[in-house]
Amino acid sequence: MESLIIINGPNLNLTGERETKFYGKVSFEDFLEELRTIFPKIKIDYFQSNVEGEIINRMHEAMLEHNAIILNAAAYTHTSVAIGDAVKAIDIPVIEVHISNVFQREDFRHVSYIAPHCVGSIAGFGFDSYRMAIEHLIRKK
Amino acid sequence: MESLIIINGPNLNLTGERETKFYGKVSFEDFLEELRTIFPKIKIDYFQSNVEGEIINRMHEAMLEHNAIILNAAAYTHTSVAIGDAVKAIDIPVIEVHISNVFQREDFRHVSYIAPHCVGSIAGFGFDSYRMAIEHLIRKK
Amino acid sequence: MESLIIINGPNLNLTGERETKFYGKVSFEDFLEELRTIFPKIKIDYFQSNVEGEIINRMHEAMLEHNAIILNAAAYTHTSVAIGDAVKAIDIPVIEVHISNVFQREDFRHVSYIAPHCVGSIAGFGFDSYRMAIEHLIRKK
Amino acid sequence: MESLIIINGPNLNLTGERETKFYGKVSFEDFLEELRTIFPKIKIDYFQSNVEGEIINRMHEAMLEHNAIILNAAAYTHTSVAIGDAVKAIDIPVIEVHISNVFQREDFRHVSYIAPHCVGSIAGFGFDSYRMAIEHLIRKK
Amino acid sequence: MESLIIINGPNLNLTGERETKFYGKVSFEDFLEELRTIFPKIKIDYFQSNVEGEIINRMHEAMLEHNAIILNAAAYTHTSVAIGDAVKAIDIPVIEVHISNVFQREDFRHVSYIAPHCVGSIAGFGFDSYRMAIEHLIRKK
Amino acid sequence: MESLIIINGPNLNLTGERETKFYGKVSFEDFLEELRTIFPKIKIDYFQSNVEGEIINRMHEAMLEHNAIILNAAAYTHTSVAIGDAVKAIDIPVIEVHISNVFQREDFRHVSYIAPHCVGSIAGFGFDSYRMAIEHLIRKK
Amino acid sequence: MESLIIINGPNLNLTGERETKFYGKVSFEDFLEELRTIFPKIKIDYFQSNVEGEIINRMHEAMLEHNAIILNAAAYTHTSVAIGDAVKAIDIPVIEVHISNVFQREDFRHVSYIAPHCVGSIAGFGFDSYRMAIEHLIRKK
Amino acid sequence: MESLIIINGPNLNLTGERETKFYGKVSFEDFLEELRTIFPKIKIDYFQSNVEGEIINRMHEAMLEHNAIILNAAAYTHTSVAIGDAVKAIDIPVIEVHISNVFQREDFRHVSYIAPHCVGSIAGFGFDSYRMAIEHLIRKK
Amino acid sequence: MESLIIINGPNLNLTGERETKFYGKVSFEDFLEELRTIFPKIKIDYFQSNVEGEIINRMHEAMLEHNAIILNAAAYTHTSVAIGDAVKAIDIPVIEVHISNVFQREDFRHVSYIAPHCVGSIAGFGFDSYRMAIEHLIRKK
Amino acid sequence: MESLIIINGPNLNLTGERETKFYGKVSFEDFLEELRTIFPKIKIDYFQSNVEGEIINRMHEAMLEHNAIILNAAAYTHTSVAIGDAVKAIDIPVIEVHISNVFQREDFRHVSYIAPHCVGSIAGFGFDSYRMAIEHLIRKK
Amino acid sequence: MESLIIINGPNLNLTGERETKFYGKVSFEDFLEELRTIFPKIKIDYFQSNVEGEIINRMHEAMLEHNAIILNAAAYTHTSVAIGDAVKAIDIPVIEVHISNVFQREDFRHVSYIAPHCVGSIAGFGFDSYRMAIEHLIRKK
Amino acid sequence: MESLIIINGPNLNLTGERETKFYGKVSFEDFLEELRTIFPKIKIDYFQSNVEGEIINRMHEAMLEHNAIILNAAAYTHTSVAIGDAVKAIDIPVIEVHISNVFQREDFRHVSYIAPHCVGSIAGFGFDSYRMAIEHLIRKK
Repeated sequence: MESLIIINGPNLNLTGERETKFYGKVSFEDFLEELRTIFPKIKIDYFQSNVEGEIINRMHEAMLEHNAIILNAAAYTHTSVAIGDAVKAIDIPVIEVHISNVFQREDFRHVSYIAPHCVGSIAGFGFDSYRMAIEHLIRKK
Repeated sequence: MESLIIINGPNLNLTGERETKFYGKVSFEDFLEELRTIFPKIKIDYFQSNVEGEIINRMHEAMLEHNAIILNAAAYTHTSVAIGDAVKAIDIPVIEVHISNVFQREDFRHVSYIAPHCVGSIAGFGFDSYRMAIEHLIRKK
Repeated sequence: MESLIIINGPNLNLTGERETKFYGKVSFEDFLEELRTIFPKIKIDYFQSNVEGEIINRMHEAMLEHNAIILNAAAYTHTSVAIGDAVKAIDIPVIEVHISNVFQREDFRHVSYIAPHCVGSIAGFGFDSYRMAIEHLIRKK
Repeated sequence: MESLIIINGPNLNLTGERETKFYGKVSFEDFLEELRTIFPKIKIDYFQSNVEGEIINRMHEAMLEHNAIILNAAAYTHTSVAIGDAVKAIDIPVIEVHISNVFQREDFRHVSYIAPHCVGSIAGFGFDSYRMAIEHLIRKK
Repeated sequence: MESLIIINGPNLNLTGERETKFYGKVSFEDFLEELRTIFPKIKIDYFQSNVEGEIINRMHEAMLEHNAIILNAAAYTHTSVAIGDAVKAIDIPVIEVHISNVFQREDFRHVSYIAPHCVGSIAGFGFDSYRMAIEHLIRKK
Repeated sequence: MESLIIINGPNLNLTGERETKFYGKVSFEDFLEELRTIFPKIKIDYFQSNVEGEIINRMHEAMLEHNAIILNAAAYTHTSVAIGDAVKAIDIPVIEVHISNVFQREDFRHVSYIAPHCVGSIAGFGFDSYRMAIEHLIRKK
Repeated sequence: MESLIIINGPNLNLTGERETKFYGKVSFEDFLEELRTIFPKIKIDYFQSNVEGEIINRMHEAMLEHNAIILNAAAYTHTSVAIGDAVKAIDIPVIEVHISNVFQREDFRHVSYIAPHCVGSIAGFGFDSYRMAIEHLIRKK
Repeated sequence: MESLIIINGPNLNLTGERETKFYGKVSFEDFLEELRTIFPKIKIDYFQSNVEGEIINRMHEAMLEHNAIILNAAAYTHTSVAIGDAVKAIDIPVIEVHISNVFQREDFRHVSYIAPHCVGSIAGFGFDSYRMAIEHLIRKK
Repeated sequence: MESLIIINGPNLNLTGERETKFYGKVSFEDFLEELRTIFPKIKIDYFQSNVEGEIINRMHEAMLEHNAIILNAAAYTHTSVAIGDAVKAIDIPVIEVHISNVFQREDFRHVSYIAPHCVGSIAGFGFDSYRMAIEHLIRKK
Repeated sequence: MESLIIINGPNLNLTGERETKFYGKVSFEDFLEELRTIFPKIKIDYFQSNVEGEIINRMHEAMLEHNAIILNAAAYTHTSVAIGDAVKAIDIPVIEVHISNVFQREDFRHVSYIAPHCVGSIAGFGFDSYRMAIEHLIRKK
Repeated sequence: MESLIIINGPNLNLTGERETKFYGKVSFEDFLEELRTIFPKIKIDYFQSNVEGEIINRMHEAMLEHNAIILNAAAYTHTSVAIGDAVKAIDIPVIEVHISNVFQREDFRHVSYIAPHCVGSIAGFGFDSYRMAIEHLIRKK
Repeated sequence: MESLIIINGPNLNLTGERETKFYGKVSFEDFLEELRTIFPKIKIDYFQSNVEGEIINRMHEAMLEHNAIILNAAAYTHTSVAIGDAVKAIDIPVIEVHISNVFQREDFRHVSYIAPHCVGSIAGFGFDSYRMAIEHLIRKK
């Protein structure tokens, strides 16, 4: 596990500013720094996009550059067969993470087109969900 | 209410040319001029995109530049949890408009992921739906 | 557009007193005066009933007396095939209005048996929904 | 079979004038005269109401005055558990009739809360549906 | 109306013997004689089969020989898209009849693939349902 | 608790005469006398109607005259969003009662649009359901 | 009515301590004393278990010892076909009670596998629901 | 038929490399050369994108440049009302193709928002599906 | 690919005469001649039946005589588990064809019990669907 | 129990040859010999057809000739209301058998229109299911 | 096949006493004696519990002691994913039996979480269902 | 975080022995030792039961003894409203863990009555899911 990429989906560029009830008051960029400090030996790349297809593009590229993907597809989790297909198509492990406990929210957020193709799924632990995913990847190896 | 943006979703770049049964024979650009004449004191910005994520991007930017959004998400109304999340995340009022009466069309067009997060919803009045939305924003203030 | 009638459905006689969260603190009667002031050239008739069939009766009569109907069928919106049939049967335009944003409330309020037969539908703008409907009728002509 | 009542539900006062595609161009009143000519030995009473509860009231009274009810509950057919309960509660035979073929129309018109409690159901034969019902009542006896 | 055919579907060869609760104690053959006596001027042909496709075959042939079809498709009513297609494809009128009130029986008997393509539907009047259908055909002419 | 009103819905004027399997052989009027004897200190008003809207009208008036409502909406329980809205809108306690055990009957009787807005719900104890409701109101105070 | 047993289901051992919004601040044991004071002539036995099968066991035994069961199956109400079968199998009357108004809570709490087999059902009156049930049993006799 | 464009949707840039069980071992680019050899008289343009909106953009442009579109929308087939609307809006014929037999895969792949607006649909013949579509366009002319 | 059989299902004996909107004005027999001219080296057998079970019988026999089946099961496509089982049981390739675009018709025609067991599926190209299927079989070899 | 008939439905003529995973490698005819050896005192008749209606015909005849029917309706189990009606109509006992464990297969095979009208149902024991059924018939007597 | 255990689920301790319509008048214990007489060479152990988890415990133990399990999970059949998981986890054959024909009872009894993991399923033959299961186990060997 | 308890649900006593595809080849007891080595400062208690109600009992006790619960309710996750209620009722944090990726298994395993009341949910990481949960509890503090 030398290198991984975190891919965040739509509206997650607003963390730390908006809907702090769900996403907390720290921006993801600040947390990212913290994460890199916790795992100094791993190269942690980062990509955020509101465009479904750009997330797919980035996942395809990641196959060649990284050993794993931590994916928080946000709202696309519940509607994107295409991202789910991308997870299935690539051959590095993908872990699904969610900041909030999606099971406490609207019914349509209980469906995931992505989870069935991931190693596993982590939801509800705030930004710590990302750290847990990385830690698991290290341990698993 | 000094400045607002109208955001139009997929295929609405074809108004005036295609499916005139639903969308009329005037292009939206022509109507936009008319609208600016009706409301000379308000800056009316305009954005159209067929890309779901670009609509989200533009909505995020709009928070900093405008006092309100008039949103016709077209087909994305019925499938986009992500645009619905964007409406919820930003703190300027958003009004949902539709040119045609969506309730007279296919069943899947009776569902809106966007309406629950908007101030209100207007459907079926042709381009006049946009004027009605703006007028309301002025009155409300 | 010389004459129209506003028809309000069940429990809307309580506006201004009850459930002010949804319906505001002004009574509909007071707002009606305001509306008549805004549109001095139009005769605005008014009818409220808690009885489904009386609403249908009044709609039938309205064909002979008025140029349009502004209909807030309230709870009957979601259950009355009969009022929907009446809208379809008469030949003056009917506009559906709702004071609250029905899409933010219970699921059974997302269904409308009336909307498919109306010119269009307006929801969530408080009493201003009625003014918007009248303004549209004038413009359209 | 000396005396029966025909009860017509909401919007059927408009027959002959409106929606002639579904209901024909003759008014029900004119047809009623024809019907009385066809069956001169039977007293044929008639009641039409747009109010669900008045239909129930009239059915309760009919038990004491008539030998049978021909019921076209129109739109209430598909929503009224209460009229269905009334049919079940009274002890003279009730026959359900429809002018149009309800099975060719919207899905929600394929459900009847009334049919299960009637002797039988006749739909799609125009006003002749009523004559068929009366003829059956005579024959059955 | 010179000639018509009655087509009966599966298990209706057992009438008069079996399930007399639903179908009565007279055999259909005996009733057929009665029917021919009632309508002496009309040639009434008869066909019964338990095989879905033979019913379709007979309907195709009937187009060339008869002016109308009285169809009791029995259990195939609720499952046969193919018979429904046949009704739609031929150009003589078809009337759907049922001996029992199908709306009082299992839920799957409330669906008809045939009714939407017929002139109309009659259910629940015992064998008299057939007479009512023929009488209507005569009157209609 | 000085004064309350019992409101009975459609077909309940037939108790004691019809469907005695469900509703018993005593008329509600006779039982009402018994009830007034049991609670001599409470003024017990009574209203029965087969018209949905009249029930709503009476509930609105009851707010000004009574301390509580005992509501048996009968068939309207399962279809009337409007009566449910009325229960929610008024500010005296409403208790839902049913004579029969509605859970032993058809599936559509297992749904109540009224129960969510009531203090509580009592079903299946015959007329005694009404006494239980009144007794609770006294105790609660 | 000499002897009855109250059977409480899962988590009801926590009443008075937890979720006081739903269950109040008095423990059931304290209320039980009060209940025995109200009905001094009746032996009131009590059993609580979090184990579905132990509730069934206790119901089987109760047949031999008691004249009636007051059953609050709590969460098992909505999932236990087995407890429903037990109610059906035994021949002493069972009354279903709920402390909170289950119809105001999640959708899955609107289903009861137990109610169809009980004498009747009481929900939403706090602990008083139990008293109401006992009072009814006495009156009924 | 002088010129057409093949538009491929999300993840189809991976053909020949990934999920060879579904998509075969030849890359689409290699097959495209073969296709141009088979149909030397037709200009065959090609576009692939993982972005839903870019596919719509390209379809709009294609109207002006080409005589037909061969569309394999891949995962967007099952979720994109917007692409379906685009097919409906443009006036050159569109044929839907799929490499794999989508009916042998997950249930959500049995739904197509695109098929109802296309000339026809071809699924399961590997890359040959594309050739079949082109051949048909030639023959049809 | 020396020999194949085309099997047509119910009502397809009427092509060229009936429902020309869906099936065109040429009879299938005439088209068959054309097809044999196009593929002179292949023996093309033909079978049409309105009887579900005869289609199964013919498919069983075809295994011994032919190299492939082109199957248009028409209405049985949407209801016949038995024909689907036959396709699965035999070991020569079966291709599903439809003349009309079934996805533009009623919802129940969007389901196919046959497609999952076929090589692939072709719908909407008129009679040319059959030619496309044969051409594919030749190419595939 | 002197005489019974085994009736096998569609595709079961292929046992021993096809889909041996589900149906084993012995043909039913061979097994039938074995069965006759096991029960030498019982006349065991046999009928197989792929035609739904012929199965019904044979069941009607069987009433007059046999004491019981062992019915494996195969795929018709899940779609044939007509065969279910036949089982209900005849008055000799019918036992439903299946060779494979239908509950391990597709969801649509978990529905049986036949089971509710049979004595009982046996599935998953291979050909031994038939022997079990016969043995039960002997014992029961 | 030297040793097996019969495991009976909830309420089956009441056989012979209660609901004799479904379960007969003989107690299971008496029948068990009969069964041991029929199969003298097999050790037949027996366990009944109303507790879901105890049934699982007993199944786990049975793996070490017995060659097969005959399981009548009664009401748990329709609700217990946990018992289904236990059947799947253990490696001795399990046969599902039911005394009554569950397909003639409520809809929720048509679902089995257990059947998919069993060898096969037998329902509707009274206690003889158990004998049939044992006989099969012997034969199979 | 001084003390926590791991509670495992039905069939998890078989880990290391059975269904190693889902649960691995190490027993949970062995893993527990490893876990205690990783977190030497935390007292890690352990409880496994196949009985739903015993799990609830243990959770109630845990409130008084521990700072947190790690809960793998296994099959009860998908059926137990009662365990979900227990999670909601207690006031120490509960984390839901699953060894396998439940989203890759049967549909009924995609529903969790427990997740909405937990801090968060972790699925698919084998036994490491437990370590991740504990690590999070430490970090969070």
